[in-house]
Amino acid sequence: PSEGWRTQPHHLSKEQLWERIRQECKRDADDEPTLASFLYSSILAHKSLEQALAFVLANKLASPTLYSTQLKQIAEDVYREDPSVMEAAMADLHAVLDRDPACDRYTQALLHFKGYQAVQSHRIAHHLWLRGRRALALMLQSRISEAFHVDIHPAARVGRGILLDHATGVVIGETAAIGDNVSMLHHVTLGGSGIGSGVRHPQVGHGVLLGAGVTVLGPVTLGPGAKVGAGSVVVTDLEPHSVAVGVPARVIKRAAESE
Amino acid sequence: PSEGWRTQPHHLSKEQLWERIRQECKRDADDEPTLASFLYSSILAHKSLEQALAFVLANKLASPTLYSTQLKQIAEDVYREDPSVMEAAMADLHAVLDRDPACDRYTQALLHFKGYQAVQSHRIAHHLWLRGRRALALMLQSRISEAFHVDIHPAARVGRGILLDHATGVVIGETAAIGDNVSMLHHVTLGGSGIGSGVRHPQVGHGVLLGAGVTVLGPVTLGPGAKVGAGSVVVTDLEPHSVAVGVPARVIKRAAESE
Amino acid sequence: PSEGWRTQPHHLSKEQLWERIRQECKRDADDEPTLASFLYSSILAHKSLEQALAFVLANKLASPTLYSTQLKQIAEDVYREDPSVMEAAMADLHAVLDRDPACDRYTQALLHFKGYQAVQSHRIAHHLWLRGRRALALMLQSRISEAFHVDIHPAARVGRGILLDHATGVVIGETAAIGDNVSMLHHVTLGGSGIGSGVRHPQVGHGVLLGAGVTVLGPVTLGPGAKVGAGSVVVTDLEPHSVAVGVPARVIKRAAESE
Repeated sequence: PSEGWRTQPHHLSKEQLWERIRQECKRDADDEPTLASFLYSSILAHKSLEQALAFVLANKLASPTLYSTQLKQIAEDVYREDPSVMEAAMADLHAVLDRDPACDRYTQALLHFKGYQAVQSHRIAHHLWLRGRRALALMLQSRISEAFHVDIHPAARVGRGILLDHATGVVIGETAAIGDNVSMLHHVTLGGSGIGSGVRHPQVGHGVLLGAGVTVLGPVTLGPGAKVGAGSVVVTDLEPHSVAVGVPARVIKRAAESE
Repeated sequence: PSEGWRTQPHHLSKEQLWERIRQECKRDADDEPTLASFLYSSILAHKSLEQALAFVLANKLASPTLYSTQLKQIAEDVYREDPSVMEAAMADLHAVLDRDPACDRYTQALLHFKGYQAVQSHRIAHHLWLRGRRALALMLQSRISEAFHVDIHPAARVGRGILLDHATGVVIGETAAIGDNVSMLHHVTLGGSGIGSGVRHPQVGHGVLLGAGVTVLGPVTLGPGAKVGAGSVVVTDLEPHSVAVGVPARVIKRAAESE
Repeated sequence: PSEGWRTQPHHLSKEQLWERIRQECKRDADDEPTLASFLYSSILAHKSLEQALAFVLANKLASPTLYSTQLKQIAEDVYREDPSVMEAAMADLHAVLDRDPACDRYTQALLHFKGYQAVQSHRIAHHLWLRGRRALALMLQSRISEAFHVDIHPAARVGRGILLDHATGVVIGETAAIGDNVSMLHHVTLGGSGIGSGVRHPQVGHGVLLGAGVTVLGPVTLGPGAKVGAGSVVVTDLEPHSVAVGVPARVIKRAAESE
């Protein structure tokens, strides 16, 4: 589901982005020698954004029983097999810069934002899931939940340009689908209703914004551009560009009004 | 409080369960050589379910200042001193398979579900607490909160057949008691009301279901089979088999109606 | 903002506190030899509370790419450059003992409470932020969020005598300010409204109490002594000593009544 993502005029190409990231790192390493070794091994030692991102994720997801070298190889293989995974990673990076007022540098998101790293790790797990490598995908889901406090089932479909801000406690279920340009704050749940089979989880349209602590339950559809206020519980469909709040959520603005 | 747990006809004996887990691991190791070493060291190298579970928990709870070998020994000693701790661990494993639609294999819960691992770690801490090993029990509580994002006071009493789904952010206070067959989603709080002494936390009956983000405060009693909808705040007793939702929660179905 | 913090008659001086902590550790090491090595390296091997706290935080925040020795040095430098950081750390320790009924020993908070450790780590990051060491401060913010599940922007201003109970999922934004003697439970958000520049986050007065899962959004002011019930969403100012609950929160008691 990626028709919603649009490259903005100020977005960088992959080469420009990689060069910008390296410049940011060099400046930080000069300003703060304490971080020089970290910045070198994480970014400056690598030949491409793919290698650097694979290294960063592998170090976060490694455990006493799963080595970072294995994980780095797995991620690099995915980026080589399917270049759209890295395109989505770049779209997400631009999304953080576009939409998070507390972030004005690419390295900050790449190196430090667990929401960004959780989504990129999920993209690896999802690729493996689709190719039938189920045991490995489920292990990655578990490690993502431990390391980033974000629990996304590897089968969940996630668009481009995604922002998970703060990210702690996000839960996204097996049959959920998320469009492009979706922003969600921490503690958001896209959960099952506990009944039925087939699609059991929410279908979230392009450009939807879900506030802190929002819970959406069951196979409901949130139309493109819908917004849900913090702490709300949504158990029904929402029309495109509507605004809903409360427990349970009620619509307080419809499309025409919210323009 | 374990009269509520009933072994279902399809539940396996300990020997059957251990054999099934080993079979699942062997199949995964064949299918995914990347995981072979992890699966061997976690499961296949061990002689019993007790040893394997002690190894898994010890590796998750280890820290630079508390070694996995120490932790493994502590867990094995508890399983030997009180076989009911392992019986509860098996009941919880069956509960995950029975009630989580996203889980159809024992190894998935045993190796990967932080909710399952948090409850098993709490059972160890609770055993130590009851025997006066307070400092060690409190340290385990802290490590459980760090590693699994689940904060259960070691004094809290927890029945059998417990499912903590997703688990991030669960908080269970010192004088809480939880019956058998209880299911709770992530972000559930069984908290104190901040006043009084003695029992300050909720008493949760057999078979209760608490949705994502439910907060129950104070020494209230949730009757057997009660259900609370996502995001609700409960500050009063709930009758058996009633259904409550909202902030504050109001009962929307009583026992007769909810049958 | 520290005029609100008052030393209580039963509070210990730094020397008394350090001696009490060492006594607690010696007793625990005698009672539980399993912990002797941990207690020795964390507390008893050090010459001062500053050294011990720096060691404890450094071990929690260390990562494969940031060494505990570096972090310990950074923290010790901050304590030496600005003694008020350690004064605040002591006030927070007294606050936990004063206000958390489940905690009756200093070592429990110091060694085990992630809310306490998150606040102390933030105080280090904030000191670095004010001195322009932005890259290092942001890296610490990221490690605090990973290790303690508490996301506090390093620019946020935090008073003395702070209790973060359980702490999982707390999020505090860039322009938030928190007075003295503030208590907040887990899942509390002091978030931005997403609009405007300048001050975008809540200003929380002395002695405010925020229950589990409370979300406060935008540049609102919570007057001194205000209380907000669990699960509430606050988007307006609250008068001093008022009590508010609900989604959205409405005031249920005003100052005169709540006395």
